[in-house]
Amino acid sequence: MGSMTDYGRSILAAQPFSRHLGAELVSLEPGSVELRLPLAEHLKQQHGFAHGGVLAYLADNAITFACGSELKVAVVTAEMKVNYLRPAVGSALIARAVAISVGKTQAVGRCDVFVVVGDEEKLCAAAQGTILVLPPNGK
Amino acid sequence: MGSMTDYGRSILAAQPFSRHLGAELVSLEPGSVELRLPLAEHLKQQHGFAHGGVLAYLADNAITFACGSELKVAVVTAEMKVNYLRPAVGSALIARAVAISVGKTQAVGRCDVFVVVGDEEKLCAAAQGTILVLPPNGK
Amino acid sequence: MGSMTDYGRSILAAQPFSRHLGAELVSLEPGSVELRLPLAEHLKQQHGFAHGGVLAYLADNAITFACGSELKVAVVTAEMKVNYLRPAVGSALIARAVAISVGKTQAVGRCDVFVVVGDEEKLCAAAQGTILVLPPNGK
Amino acid sequence: MGSMTDYGRSILAAQPFSRHLGAELVSLEPGSVELRLPLAEHLKQQHGFAHGGVLAYLADNAITFACGSELKVAVVTAEMKVNYLRPAVGSALIARAVAISVGKTQAVGRCDVFVVVGDEEKLCAAAQGTILVLPPNGK
Repeated sequence: MGSMTDYGRSILAAQPFSRHLGAELVSLEPGSVELRLPLAEHLKQQHGFAHGGVLAYLADNAITFACGSELKVAVVTAEMKVNYLRPAVGSALIARAVAISVGKTQAVGRCDVFVVVGDEEKLCAAAQGTILVLPPNGK
Repeated sequence: MGSMTDYGRSILAAQPFSRHLGAELVSLEPGSVELRLPLAEHLKQQHGFAHGGVLAYLADNAITFACGSELKVAVVTAEMKVNYLRPAVGSALIARAVAISVGKTQAVGRCDVFVVVGDEEKLCAAAQGTILVLPPNGK
Repeated sequence: MGSMTDYGRSILAAQPFSRHLGAELVSLEPGSVELRLPLAEHLKQQHGFAHGGVLAYLADNAITFACGSELKVAVVTAEMKVNYLRPAVGSALIARAVAISVGKTQAVGRCDVFVVVGDEEKLCAAAQGTILVLPPNGK
Repeated sequence: MGSMTDYGRSILAAQPFSRHLGAELVSLEPGSVELRLPLAEHLKQQHGFAHGGVLAYLADNAITFACGSELKVAVVTAEMKVNYLRPAVGSALIARAVAISVGKTQAVGRCDVFVVVGDEEKLCAAAQGTILVLPPNGK
């Protein structure tokens, strides 16, 4: 748990939306991250599964952290695609993202989102997205 | 504002996550929907923009409503792709989705997300996704 | 059919792959384009439908032309997503793309691909993608 | 090179479009595939790179083979997303895809596309997509 993880936690803590949902940053290294989100009642949809928007949020944020840790400047998500693979029913969500391509002004990353069921992790979403360096004037 | 809009509102009210964020259903007709989300502080990221996950949630939910209103059974999102077009800074977000292709077991929809700035609406995200009929056993 | 259409045709003619497939540029205006591809036997897969790769090619190229006509410099596709909506069986494919967001270094566009069946056009694919300005050194 | 690879080659040979481009199936196992495409002149765009549509074709086809080898019935691509990571300039393209989630009626796969430059392989595109079982009546 190095200083990069601490830095990542300070960024996550500066995101009101991440605090509102209850997300935690488990670890951050150059090009990879793990986020965790306890599956509280307020994250669900009408069938009792985690809402797709929750999985999309986690994937978006994880890809941004993984790529941002390589670009080392302020970044924003340009686009993302997520496939929902099974209903997310369990005690927590874990998102692991890696940067797969890093350029000067953008990077591309992939993310797997798992739902924790007892001792097991089950893959419940897979995402891929692009991160852009934020221009000084806010894009 | 017919009975379909009322029905849609009852579904939205049954989604704990939508209540947690504060989403409202403005109107629902067969194949199209308008959702609205006042841009409260808790929806933002560290630069003061609406978090990408919020826009993804809105697009996901809007596409699901637009397509579900055609399929007329319980549905889940299979996949979605969203492009973020400008920082979402304003008083509210409006998501308008339409079903563009409806089959027996799945439908595809598109969604435009606008940020309200004063009297104006500015396009801030564009999405496209697939909705699946939920099998009786929950997939 | 103004000079922009002629210019677009000269670009299409400079793409060996587009000549290899037989694509035609019907019209090009700032921010919108129409491409046409007669559905020859060599464009099909084993079920007799147009191969998904053909539809992806058309969507990719159409979005690039629509966005490139706004950016007015050399561009490349950064990413694209396509939904296949019905088997493409007919006499020709028509792709119509529009730019929906144009910035200084990138643009986002959408494309509808239709298959021509007799006198009718049927929507068979829907795409969305991002175009980047090509840096002087070729990225 | 077992019988599954031979079976895959017979499918590829039955796709007129794959023959038109010159694609080869290197190996096929349950849930994974490798396709190869020599980078002939007719696959390029006007800057001399492989056309994006070529990379999309390869990714689409590879994901379909990887997922189809698990589903073991006739399949079609439902949707795909591809990120182009660098200009594809080299002697050949290699696409490696794996199925990451397999259900009864659909599967989701990922694909990495590499360009061969001398002895080296460089990642030039990354894709993710959904495959559907083809209904008896052709959808």
